[in-house]
Amino acid sequence: MSESRIRNAALRSKIMSADQAAALILDGAHVGMSGFTGAGYPKAVPAALAARMNAKHAAGEHFKIGVWTGASTAPELDGALAKADGIELRMPYQSDPNCRKRINAGELDYIDIHLSHVAQYVWFGFFGKLDVAVVEVAGIREDGRLIPSSSVGNNKTWLDQADKIILEVNRWQNPALEGMHDIYYGTDLPPHRRPIPLITAHDRIGQPYFFCDPDKVIAVIETDAPDRNTAFSPPDLVSRAIAGNILDFLEHEVKKGRLPPELLPLQSGVGNVANAVMDGLQHGPFEGLSSFTEVLQDGMLNLIKSGKMEFASATALSLSPEAAEEFNRDVALYRKKVILRPQEISNHPELIRRLGVIAMNGLIEADIYGNVNSTHIRGTSIMNGIGGSGDFARNAYLSIFMTPSTAKNGAISCIVPMVTHVDHTEHDVQVIVTEQGLADLRGLPPRRRAQEIIARCAHPDYRPALEDYFARALRESPGRHTPHLMNEAFSFLDAWKAAETRINSARAAE
Amino acid sequence: MSESRIRNAALRSKIMSADQAAALILDGAHVGMSGFTGAGYPKAVPAALAARMNAKHAAGEHFKIGVWTGASTAPELDGALAKADGIELRMPYQSDPNCRKRINAGELDYIDIHLSHVAQYVWFGFFGKLDVAVVEVAGIREDGRLIPSSSVGNNKTWLDQADKIILEVNRWQNPALEGMHDIYYGTDLPPHRRPIPLITAHDRIGQPYFFCDPDKVIAVIETDAPDRNTAFSPPDLVSRAIAGNILDFLEHEVKKGRLPPELLPLQSGVGNVANAVMDGLQHGPFEGLSSFTEVLQDGMLNLIKSGKMEFASATALSLSPEAAEEFNRDVALYRKKVILRPQEISNHPELIRRLGVIAMNGLIEADIYGNVNSTHIRGTSIMNGIGGSGDFARNAYLSIFMTPSTAKNGAISCIVPMVTHVDHTEHDVQVIVTEQGLADLRGLPPRRRAQEIIARCAHPDYRPALEDYFARALRESPGRHTPHLMNEAFSFLDAWKAAETRINSARAAE
Ligand SMILES: CC(C)(COP(=O)(O)OP(=O)(O)OC[C@H]1O[C@@H](n2cnc3c(N)ncnc32)[C@H](O)[C@@H]1OP(=O)(O)O)[C@@H](O)C(=O)NCCC(=O)NCCS
Ligand SMILES: CC(C)(COP(=O)(O)OP(=O)(O)OC[C@H]1O[C@@H](n2cnc3c(N)ncnc32)[C@H](O)[C@@H]1OP(=O)(O)O)[C@@H](O)C(=O)NCCC(=O)NCCS
Repeated sequence: MSESRIRNAALRSKIMSADQAAALILDGAHVGMSGFTGAGYPKAVPAALAARMNAKHAAGEHFKIGVWTGASTAPELDGALAKADGIELRMPYQSDPNCRKRINAGELDYIDIHLSHVAQYVWFGFFGKLDVAVVEVAGIREDGRLIPSSSVGNNKTWLDQADKIILEVNRWQNPALEGMHDIYYGTDLPPHRRPIPLITAHDRIGQPYFFCDPDKVIAVIETDAPDRNTAFSPPDLVSRAIAGNILDFLEHEVKKGRLPPELLPLQSGVGNVANAVMDGLQHGPFEGLSSFTEVLQDGMLNLIKSGKMEFASATALSLSPEAAEEFNRDVALYRKKVILRPQEISNHPELIRRLGVIAMNGLIEADIYGNVNSTHIRGTSIMNGIGGSGDFARNAYLSIFMTPSTAKNGAISCIVPMVTHVDHTEHDVQVIVTEQGLADLRGLPPRRRAQEIIARCAHPDYRPALEDYFARALRESPGRHTPHLMNEAFSFLDAWKAAETRINSARAAE
Repeated sequence: MSESRIRNAALRSKIMSADQAAALILDGAHVGMSGFTGAGYPKAVPAALAARMNAKHAAGEHFKIGVWTGASTAPELDGALAKADGIELRMPYQSDPNCRKRINAGELDYIDIHLSHVAQYVWFGFFGKLDVAVVEVAGIREDGRLIPSSSVGNNKTWLDQADKIILEVNRWQNPALEGMHDIYYGTDLPPHRRPIPLITAHDRIGQPYFFCDPDKVIAVIETDAPDRNTAFSPPDLVSRAIAGNILDFLEHEVKKGRLPPELLPLQSGVGNVANAVMDGLQHGPFEGLSSFTEVLQDGMLNLIKSGKMEFASATALSLSPEAAEEFNRDVALYRKKVILRPQEISNHPELIRRLGVIAMNGLIEADIYGNVNSTHIRGTSIMNGIGGSGDFARNAYLSIFMTPSTAKNGAISCIVPMVTHVDHTEHDVQVIVTEQGLADLRGLPPRRRAQEIIARCAHPDYRPALEDYFARALRESPGRHTPHLMNEAFSFLDAWKAAETRINSARAAE
């Protein structure tokens, strides 16, 4: 197989084991890894590196690296390196439990950053030098160009910017991925930038391969391992209700003439609720859909299969094992309907605004004025990160945020007087939707937003407390543009604490 | 003179008095007015309208309108209408004391919105129908096209979208303004949008005039009144120190090769500090400067005059009376060096990012993690609004926020544990600078940001309290990604309250 997947002789001569390759990464290195929402991450080198770190640490030596990725990866990468306490600094988006634990213990530095900003900040030199790129590819061509794998993420930037390159060639990746990618090489640094010539989600503006300077390649590793994507739970009642509310709203907007019947390109966040919305569209009235999004999940794949969606642009596939099989089975169809792009393109403000994307993202809590917290639990602990949600919310035609009205089995209201951390300000949030209903905030000043959000989105159990807060704030707030009682703004945290105690003792009793 | 300024016969026939024109605006109307930071606002109709409102109110009748503008206007517009209690809803940016008072008393609904969003949201239909446009122009051509005045703002959109148009032709405006504007007619609604073909700040992509359907014009009023621009105070010690810190930083970035010697196009917020930075550049080492900004203030005009700045792109002139005179005196020079554009272009994310703008904006308070409050006093009262600061901060090459380290004669720290309102999140703030120093937050995780901001930006009087908060938060915070003591996060408000009491009693004693 090595002949067929690694068709460049010079690079073939650099094949070695993952352990050998890992030994080429030094303490303190900045390492750019491939990987975006569980797709296309290197499968072998990170584990070998983690083993090396453990050995060094056991010998009393210092060994930590900076890990830069596309977005979240998998236990084999973030999990393994975090467990080995081998990450000095991690950026951007992550969602690994071990990583998260260390970040929130103050043991691992994490920089949360808009996904559209990452590549350009590295080019600008804001993060220092990139030492090594570790990138999974689906194959290497005779001419040395690389066939991207199931995600593109920041790989183009890592390959261009790194001093040294380690390639993992994964034979599990479908060879038919070849030709599906669109790698745009027209970006530049200011003052030399030019318009990005993309005007529809299905435009091709680049080439299907990565350029790669063969002299920088220090190792090639062969792997054969699946992307570790998680299965989706079938949409539950709450997710279905949220999806239903969004579909009703979109139908209403079409009727009002504010959206065309085929809608505008959809962006859909990650997770079960996002997947449920796609599922809802399957049974909805819309035809000729398209998407311009980060991640292609099962629900979107189904829309393509059924013919409801004509085209999808993303930077990564994030499919359940079953959907990945389906994708591989019918790859001839999906190749024509899907383009994977670098995340600086999939998330580019210029393009999101030009295309008029309908953005739909999850949240942790929203406040009565429409500020959204996407990242922090109780204002201090990171959940995952902002990801691309800001790129999309700010520049979208319609910016929708969705959430169950409560978390932790109803013990916590996701609608609060004041969010404990702000990722999306009132200026960037147009619609908030829960299973209870949908608040359309467009054109509403703060006090009217509060009324809508409390009445339509809050869970009935928490509505009275929110109404009471708002009513008293209206009377007692020093300023009444955004009425607040600053000394009670976080009072819902007390309920949170009580709930947490209850949950923890229930867990302990189990 | 009316022949020379109103050269279209059909429109000449519609000349009438401001009172007659004001009578054509009905209760409940949505009115789009010209005006951006005290430039190019209608000088006669708003006052006539306010008089009419007062009369109606005295007769017990309801009379309020929605006022949509470019940005802030002047006492003759916002002030007069707010005093007459004639504004139902105001959007976007305003800075009028009377308007502010009513907004914060809960008597006037105000929608604060990114300036780059306003025009498109109106085109999308998110704010309902625009009934009347009231637009100041410098003249009307034979063919009916309009010569814009000292600001462009949203005028193109108001003229296109309104059912009816009232024009004020102001003979005070320099006739040499003709040809200086660049009105881009290439915007469209998704899915029909195309790249905006601007690649340098001095590109012309439109035409110098507004189109205007003559059938929609219901009144033409002749005026002869200056823009009400305020004078700048000469830079004080604090502003000069802030400017000095910024200049040192820019020099450092040039040395590091992260900025070209002529820098990148500058955006500079409004106010004295912003003006002081321009003044600093006058004596700094940089040549061949350019700007891509909202507002051209005195400082920038001086840079053009001295030859330090080669070109300025803005949406409005906001000059002191002396600078306005200077502008008029040397208009032949400035015409070649200045372009005024619609604010949807001056503030467009696509263009700000493409050009790699260096954004410098003011703030009310910043917190130790780099979140910025630009709009709210004590979390509840609006000061002005977000204006274009978000458009620039998010999309800039470098996003700098600047402020004195204290307000109210030292009684309030502008660096606080947690801001009481967030307009710019940690994700959009790269540099914070006060007279004390400059914190470069690029590439820093939250805990290191806190150390930098406290050490470099906070006033020595408040540094111990901030250090103490941060140290205890590091120990006691439930999560240590963004350590906080949520029950003390707003504790600086107590100092605020004490200071306020002191100030008020001092004022009462005067
Ligand atoms: C916000 C976000 C975490 C929601 O994720 P989700 O899978 O849709 O939502 P869930 O309801 O499963 O919530 C995830 C976790 O947060 C917890 N949670 C949700 N709301 C909470 C709240 N208000 N308080 C405390 N915990 C809360 C849930 O209980 C759950 O915890 P668990 O994993 O221990 O069970 C997720 O959308 C995200 O990371 N967003 C930011 C990035 C982004 O938007 N990317 C989209 C692509 S551009
Ligand atoms: C933030 C902003 C108000 C600062 O304005 P400025 O003129 O540079 O700063 P000043 O120091 O004069 O502050 C303005 C007022 O706010 C008060 N203030 C400033 N910081 C304060 C604080 N932390 N707490 C309470 N009051 C504060 C000042 O005392 C002053 O009040 P006064 O008018 O009663 O004297 C102004 O930059 C703004 O409106 N920004 C938002 C829009 C924007 O950035 N536009 C730029 C163009 S894109």
